[in-house]
Amino acid sequence: MEINMTEKALELLSAKRFLDLKNLFAILNPADIAQILEELPHEHLPLLFRILPKELAADAFIEMDNDSQELLIKGFNDKELREVLDELFVDDTVDLIEEMPAGVVKRILRNTDPETRRIINQILNYPEDSAGSIMTTEYVRLQKEMTVEQAFARIKQTGADKETIYTCYVTDERRLLLGVVTVRQLLLAERTDILGDIMETHIISVDTFEDKEIAAQTMSKYDFSVIPVVDKEKRLVGIITFDDALDVMEDEATEDISKMSAVTPGDKPYLKTGVWETWKARIPWLLLLMISATFTGMIITSFESSLASYVVLTAYIPMLMDTGGNSGSQSSVTIIRGLSLGEITFGDLPRVIWKEARVSVLCGVTLCAANFVKLILFDRVSMLVAAVVCSTLVATVIVAKVVGCTLPILAKRIGFDPTVMASPFITTIVDAISLFIYFSIATVLLGL
Amino acid sequence: MEINMTEKALELLSAKRFLDLKNLFAILNPADIAQILEELPHEHLPLLFRILPKELAADAFIEMDNDSQELLIKGFNDKELREVLDELFVDDTVDLIEEMPAGVVKRILRNTDPETRRIINQILNYPEDSAGSIMTTEYVRLQKEMTVEQAFARIKQTGADKETIYTCYVTDERRLLLGVVTVRQLLLAERTDILGDIMETHIISVDTFEDKEIAAQTMSKYDFSVIPVVDKEKRLVGIITFDDALDVMEDEATEDISKMSAVTPGDKPYLKTGVWETWKARIPWLLLLMISATFTGMIITSFESSLASYVVLTAYIPMLMDTGGNSGSQSSVTIIRGLSLGEITFGDLPRVIWKEARVSVLCGVTLCAANFVKLILFDRVSMLVAAVVCSTLVATVIVAKVVGCTLPILAKRIGFDPTVMASPFITTIVDAISLFIYFSIATVLLGL
Repeated sequence: MEINMTEKALELLSAKRFLDLKNLFAILNPADIAQILEELPHEHLPLLFRILPKELAADAFIEMDNDSQELLIKGFNDKELREVLDELFVDDTVDLIEEMPAGVVKRILRNTDPETRRIINQILNYPEDSAGSIMTTEYVRLQKEMTVEQAFARIKQTGADKETIYTCYVTDERRLLLGVVTVRQLLLAERTDILGDIMETHIISVDTFEDKEIAAQTMSKYDFSVIPVVDKEKRLVGIITFDDALDVMEDEATEDISKMSAVTPGDKPYLKTGVWETWKARIPWLLLLMISATFTGMIITSFESSLASYVVLTAYIPMLMDTGGNSGSQSSVTIIRGLSLGEITFGDLPRVIWKEARVSVLCGVTLCAANFVKLILFDRVSMLVAAVVCSTLVATVIVAKVVGCTLPILAKRIGFDPTVMASPFITTIVDAISLFIYFSIATVLLGL
Repeated sequence: MEINMTEKALELLSAKRFLDLKNLFAILNPADIAQILEELPHEHLPLLFRILPKELAADAFIEMDNDSQELLIKGFNDKELREVLDELFVDDTVDLIEEMPAGVVKRILRNTDPETRRIINQILNYPEDSAGSIMTTEYVRLQKEMTVEQAFARIKQTGADKETIYTCYVTDERRLLLGVVTVRQLLLAERTDILGDIMETHIISVDTFEDKEIAAQTMSKYDFSVIPVVDKEKRLVGIITFDDALDVMEDEATEDISKMSAVTPGDKPYLKTGVWETWKARIPWLLLLMISATFTGMIITSFESSLASYVVLTAYIPMLMDTGGNSGSQSSVTIIRGLSLGEITFGDLPRVIWKEARVSVLCGVTLCAANFVKLILFDRVSMLVAAVVCSTLVATVIVAKVVGCTLPILAKRIGFDPTVMASPFITTIVDAISLFIYFSIATVLLGL
């Protein structure tokens, strides 16, 4: 999206050249139109929106941010609102409702037909993050007695407002999912073939209550562009399409990355989140971690008198804490990602620990050697002090990596979110452990 | 994938019930078959593979891990190898070639037909991570003079071995991309309509040299299931399909998460990466960060004498360092994610800094208040020491957040990867700054 498109639109708008504006929009994609509309001064939004052809307007509407959508809906009369809503897919309407304030939601529901309203309410009832909450109900249903010819006729007749027509679902009168047939199969088959004979009957589907991330991963694993969503009785209730799967993957990665850096995930882009909101997402974690860090302080306090007689030891506290923290995060974050991609399960715990133990010994020894050279040649500390620092380093790296790989897996096992076991918490835990090891070794070797 | 499928297969294999085994595989999806084959003892792999019908065998083959693929290829005779290769899409063959050792690659290339070999070599020549390197050349090409009827005939005739038939490309004799037409449009049009009249001519495409992540994001933005890849002269050279876009998104997120936790990203799952390989991916960063942390140690050393007379100050070093590090990572990681999703650009730097400055003041003051209460009521330190610790805390949080949000944006601007500016580096930088602030304030207030 080049900036000059927005400038061009503003120029045409100022000159009141609405026909040229309309022609400009006609060659653009809904996502680009949405971006231009958001970038122009907000007071022009309703006017500009009315220039767009109906279908394009609805497609652009759904791509806009929540603030612009709310502004537009508030400016619509009931007829205009209905026109936009009529063009939306059910899953998009549900997304919209979830983001709008109560007053707007009421108006939206009042302006949808009773059948759509029933479906919307049903989808809204599925738990957040479930497959049911992101599915759409606009799919093509066929019967197994149909011929290919009849199937094409049905697709032509009902396909116009379906989210996808390329994968069609064969169900019985109770909506039990019997088979799947693709337009590709239909095109390559004879026109007199019966669907019951050519449909695929080994169907991979997801349950309405399944986690939406699992649904997206299943689609990715099998390279599906669409997956059927079924209820407990295996009746077809909806479909999830690849574009929603892409969104889920992107959102889940963003969420995981937020949690790993001790930020409560939000659903707005950074620049659209207010200062107070950002503060609220960050401060609880900072407070919690600050309080945890006082334990580390307590360890120092309890060795205060020893430290006073060996102040040189203080200089290595940051290096030991940082290296321990970094070693621990490397392991924990790697394991968390493996858990979330389904590559690692609880049963792998012994293998994971064994691997991390070996890696940590290698890392510890390498770091120890590098550090020993530095301590003796540059810092010119005594052999004893070097021995204390270096052996602490090895011990810390080993403990950090083993703790770092174990905690996320245990957290997941007992039903906690493993992502919170990432860098910040591991760092805090490892800090305390590394200082404890440090002072214990120092007490023995230096006779403090 | 339930475990009992693998057990079932093993049972049938031990009983030499090959027909039952064949029937079991027939109802499974290629991705599931690949998983079962990998889990069974490796010596059975060639035998089991030969049980599968040709097309299913090739589809399962491409889902397997590199070790199993290599093992299989080495066991194939040339005829078997050709049979598998014939069934693969070009992009899958390219993926395979990129992962196999030189000897195996030679055999693969010897057993592909000259035209395919030419295309493979062309794709292999595109830079790693470019759109060209992940595209496939198996798309449906149509001419603009064709009727809908003729288009369907062409699709039926050539579609069987195309990766997708649902989006077809209208090109001229020089392969210049003129338009796009979907099977949906074709189905809803009259059979006598001319493609030139119904095709979409405002085409969004990506360049062969474009970053593959940008290609995937473009597909996600516009909800495309497939995107055309064109060369500098706008000639169509290939397409990228949604399944590859899903893989790119997943891989890129994993890569970013690795880099953010100071691990060199690899392309194998955790449990399949060897100990030495894991060590190699982690140790350079640990060494680098350890060396950086010595600067922090040097700051402590230079204030050693002051510390000796005020040992109580040492107890608050971990808390100050950790809080600074956590505050900095919160900002840097949030910004890095925003940059990689394209939500934040260099031009936003002033807005970002202004926002982080306000958030950091709020966070700093909150943490300061909580800490002050703790220092006075629980630690019972003097007012002066409390003042030193609390004012350091506020200053550190502000510096940490401003540095944390600025560095990734600047890194990206000068062409570096912003992800390396995540937690570990920010923590190291903020550590040094926070200690410097700490001792400077202490020197003034406590008259050290």
